[in-house]
Amino acid sequence: MIVQKYKDMLQGKSVIRQLSEFAVARGQEIGYENVFDFSLGNPSVPVPQAFTDTMIRMLQEKDSMELHGYSQSLGIPSVRDKVAASLNKRFGMNYTGNHIFMTTGAAGAIAHALRCVTQPGDEVLTFAPYFPEYAPYVNLTGAVLKVVPADTENFQINFGAFEEMLTEKVAAVLINTPNNPSGMVYSTATVKELSRIMEEKQRQYGHDIFLISDEPYREIVFAGVDAPYPSAFYDNSLSCYSFSKSLSLPGERIGYIAVNPKCTDAELISVMCSQISRGTGHNCPPSIIQLAVAKVLDLTSDLSVYERNMNILYKELTGLGFECVRPGGTFYMFPKSPEPDAVAFSGKAKKYDLILVPGDSFGVEGYFRIAYCIDTEKVERSLEAFRRLMKENY
Amino acid sequence: MIVQKYKDMLQGKSVIRQLSEFAVARGQEIGYENVFDFSLGNPSVPVPQAFTDTMIRMLQEKDSMELHGYSQSLGIPSVRDKVAASLNKRFGMNYTGNHIFMTTGAAGAIAHALRCVTQPGDEVLTFAPYFPEYAPYVNLTGAVLKVVPADTENFQINFGAFEEMLTEKVAAVLINTPNNPSGMVYSTATVKELSRIMEEKQRQYGHDIFLISDEPYREIVFAGVDAPYPSAFYDNSLSCYSFSKSLSLPGERIGYIAVNPKCTDAELISVMCSQISRGTGHNCPPSIIQLAVAKVLDLTSDLSVYERNMNILYKELTGLGFECVRPGGTFYMFPKSPEPDAVAFSGKAKKYDLILVPGDSFGVEGYFRIAYCIDTEKVERSLEAFRRLMKENY
Repeated sequence: MIVQKYKDMLQGKSVIRQLSEFAVARGQEIGYENVFDFSLGNPSVPVPQAFTDTMIRMLQEKDSMELHGYSQSLGIPSVRDKVAASLNKRFGMNYTGNHIFMTTGAAGAIAHALRCVTQPGDEVLTFAPYFPEYAPYVNLTGAVLKVVPADTENFQINFGAFEEMLTEKVAAVLINTPNNPSGMVYSTATVKELSRIMEEKQRQYGHDIFLISDEPYREIVFAGVDAPYPSAFYDNSLSCYSFSKSLSLPGERIGYIAVNPKCTDAELISVMCSQISRGTGHNCPPSIIQLAVAKVLDLTSDLSVYERNMNILYKELTGLGFECVRPGGTFYMFPKSPEPDAVAFSGKAKKYDLILVPGDSFGVEGYFRIAYCIDTEKVERSLEAFRRLMKENY
Repeated sequence: MIVQKYKDMLQGKSVIRQLSEFAVARGQEIGYENVFDFSLGNPSVPVPQAFTDTMIRMLQEKDSMELHGYSQSLGIPSVRDKVAASLNKRFGMNYTGNHIFMTTGAAGAIAHALRCVTQPGDEVLTFAPYFPEYAPYVNLTGAVLKVVPADTENFQINFGAFEEMLTEKVAAVLINTPNNPSGMVYSTATVKELSRIMEEKQRQYGHDIFLISDEPYREIVFAGVDAPYPSAFYDNSLSCYSFSKSLSLPGERIGYIAVNPKCTDAELISVMCSQISRGTGHNCPPSIIQLAVAKVLDLTSDLSVYERNMNILYKELTGLGFECVRPGGTFYMFPKSPEPDAVAFSGKAKKYDLILVPGDSFGVEGYFRIAYCIDTEKVERSLEAFRRLMKENY
């Protein structure tokens, strides 16, 4: 029989999706170039040419059965080895290919990591503001997502609330740094304190508490920002990565889990994930995409536009009186709404063709998200709309 | 904490995998060309050139952000429309794009179909001989796979056993035609009788019983064989497809669910699947692969080699006294072992460098599977080994 719980999920429509649809519809009226659509987190810069060249070369030269054949369900061994080597070089880790499980993006990585270290009924903690998909990601495994209230001063971690919520029922803590939607990067001090508390609680409860670190924005960090690699600070850690943002190919669904070699059962986790994938239907990401990203592991798209856009917006918005913690990375910022009701504020902004997502969608009321992964020229044209919005309403 | 059930799954090693590893190891001793490796179901013919050409052209010509951007989680709308149109033309159905959910291969399709129409604890019936991955596919959703004993006379359906096992607890029936491992194709009479019984039981129990039809071998049907499209005969049907075999690209993980427009909640099922995918981490198959297969929907690789191989093997083996139902499609056949213990027979065959999988792996003792997706030249050279195996042992 048709399963009611999935049917019920069809009732809610995400605010982000609604705003994005509004932007498209408004674009059809006045030209999309005149809608300042800051609603969606889609990369706005092309894939590196080397990726495209590699894909074409493989298609032209490789034996098709070899190129398009089954990969192991853990991923292609040579690709896993290269991912491990790249991470070791950059972050001083000791991964081998055996610690890498290739996935269909960060979503696939998180789905497998959660199933590996949580049972139905276990609690998973995350921190507001947070990517709203975490709720279905966690809750559909049978575990229960609990959200630690935000540290609205710095958008680091509200450690008081965290310690209180880190009860014996918690099997995993899910972090996202650099963060969607705040744009903040956890400092070394933050990661160390997080790690210290988790280690203490592990000892106290006598069971593992895993850190699942969602890092799709790892390569988008702005000048001078301290951006530690969380797995270097905590043994029971699973680093979940996606190439979507760094290589601008979100549609190709490619990422991985890197299992900390020091974690419990470190040598088993990637093969456990390949068992889990028999149930999720995941199997492995596409062979050709695995092979192609392995050739450009240490490249990124030209990500400089995001920092440029951030600087322009940060300067203008703080000048207009917005309170905003300066982003350390990503292509998001998360200013305070000039009125407590960010939904009302977002509604007013729409009248100026500014599409801004209320922070309510990310678990923090009274703030809003700007996704500035759009052309700089459009960012500059949007400033006048922000000015009018503020002048005429606040 | 690390989840024990997935750890436990690491203990068992599949017989197919072990035989395949033996074949590779033996190949290192005597040259792989001298090992008659009939163990694995990997396509042995190249992808159509039109697929490769399409991929290259898109990479050269398309805007990279458009080409590699997020697709909707249901799949790219134009791709879903084309799949629907192709199925309608071939099978007289009335699908629209809304009935198509793009997946990462048949494994992804089955994972979503099962979650859509079964609850934990429900029973799912399948028929021996069956693809052994069905057990984890079903059991890891929380439902329970039950296997209806084989009709060893024709490898159609043992309807007596089926009717007995089709109790009120059954939420879905999982079929695979053309069949791995028997090579048999369900006849129109078989599909009609299956449908009649399921409809009767639906009425009797007052709840839906879904038919999940796994069809990766749909395009590999031999001359003159009656190969009905199951969904044309039963309303509550979900057709699960993979392009792995028809286009020889199993590593690219692309397939779909086609939801029968006449089934319960037909308009909801594909959007329900996109909710399910938030939990499985599936999201959608890679954009570029979706776009490329949509361009070659009505093409296949040159599949004629499989029928040629079947004819050679069928003639020789029946001549040697093997009992075997003549395959109607796929690249498998499933002869009776000359001794009741097919594991012992497979062990003897190994001494002649014939790698044959005992039927025990597929839920039928006393038979063995030959996967003849290898070069015809090698099939011909294998005949002498079959002759010696029989002469010297039976």
